[in-house]
Amino acid sequence: MTDQPTGAWKLLSSTYSFRDRWLTLRSDTVALPGGETLTPYHVIESPDWVNAIAITDDGNIVLVEQYRHAVRQTMLELPAGHVDPGEAPEVAVKRELLEETGHEAAHWHDLGALFPAASRFTNKVRSYLAVGVRPVRAPVSGGSETLRVRSIPWAEFVAGLYSGDMMLREANQLASVFLLHMHAKSSSDPAIARLRV
Amino acid sequence: MTDQPTGAWKLLSSTYSFRDRWLTLRSDTVALPGGETLTPYHVIESPDWVNAIAITDDGNIVLVEQYRHAVRQTMLELPAGHVDPGEAPEVAVKRELLEETGHEAAHWHDLGALFPAASRFTNKVRSYLAVGVRPVRAPVSGGSETLRVRSIPWAEFVAGLYSGDMMLREANQLASVFLLHMHAKSSSDPAIARLRV
Repeated sequence: MTDQPTGAWKLLSSTYSFRDRWLTLRSDTVALPGGETLTPYHVIESPDWVNAIAITDDGNIVLVEQYRHAVRQTMLELPAGHVDPGEAPEVAVKRELLEETGHEAAHWHDLGALFPAASRFTNKVRSYLAVGVRPVRAPVSGGSETLRVRSIPWAEFVAGLYSGDMMLREANQLASVFLLHMHAKSSSDPAIARLRV
Repeated sequence: MTDQPTGAWKLLSSTYSFRDRWLTLRSDTVALPGGETLTPYHVIESPDWVNAIAITDDGNIVLVEQYRHAVRQTMLELPAGHVDPGEAPEVAVKRELLEETGHEAAHWHDLGALFPAASRFTNKVRSYLAVGVRPVRAPVSGGSETLRVRSIPWAEFVAGLYSGDMMLREANQLASVFLLHMHAKSSSDPAIARLRV
């Protein structure tokens, strides 16, 4: 045990070190609980995110294959995106699933919210299970979003997680699958209970 | 299925929009697979991270309680930190566990690497299970790291995950626990097999 206080920091002032349409970097000056001043403490202001674990009636998971420039690698990801200003997260996740994959779902289950990176990002990511998912139209693709929709059997997806397939190794997305696992273990619905990992 | 290509982007040029001791924001100009130029695409260059799931012989998990200014909340976290330049991750994780908690471990198991946030961060986070963990000295605390070491029964930790305790809701860290769960399910060692979630 340390004697250090772990209480809240007091925000003294903020400045924006960088800000454009894509990224907002705020640099704060704060007072630590012991009274010491710390500057700068950088945070990235970000809108909330939503992730969809989308399961079809024949037991496939609908994923999107996407090149991620930050890590110079093609990833296989959950349909996901930003919550628009004033938009409810349950609306955002339906919009993103439809835009990215052209699919709609019969039922949605809220799996809860997480902080994607509490050391730097201000936002939350809320995860949803979508069941009874079916294609209703063509996906919308544009800008830097060049996605390929992939529908694969759940067992194959889980085997990829266990084998350490690097296309499935995004922490924020694996955390959503972990939330689903815990939800499935507590579920009395056999179609959901079988989704434990 | 879309007809969009999902192949690698070609890096045309880079500039640093912001850089100091704490954060490096690189802004790239890239050519998409279809030939279109995209600018700017921001990435945050970051050193790799390590997370330690540290279990004592009496079945407690050793955590650190820390205020996270980005989300204005005190979090209960795995001991974790940056890999120093030239440092091996398995050295970094032992150093971080010792510095943050004053504990050493009898055995370490590599649980694999993830991308913390492939949409923005360049780095990986590698997770480790440490068993036979015991206190050997006082933690080192300094700068903005005002930590409180907490040792809690594994079952209490897991109950907190299931109840949605917001102190445990950091995606990158939950993903480490998910890697442990998959490792535990495949383990023939009863002391590790019981760590499934």
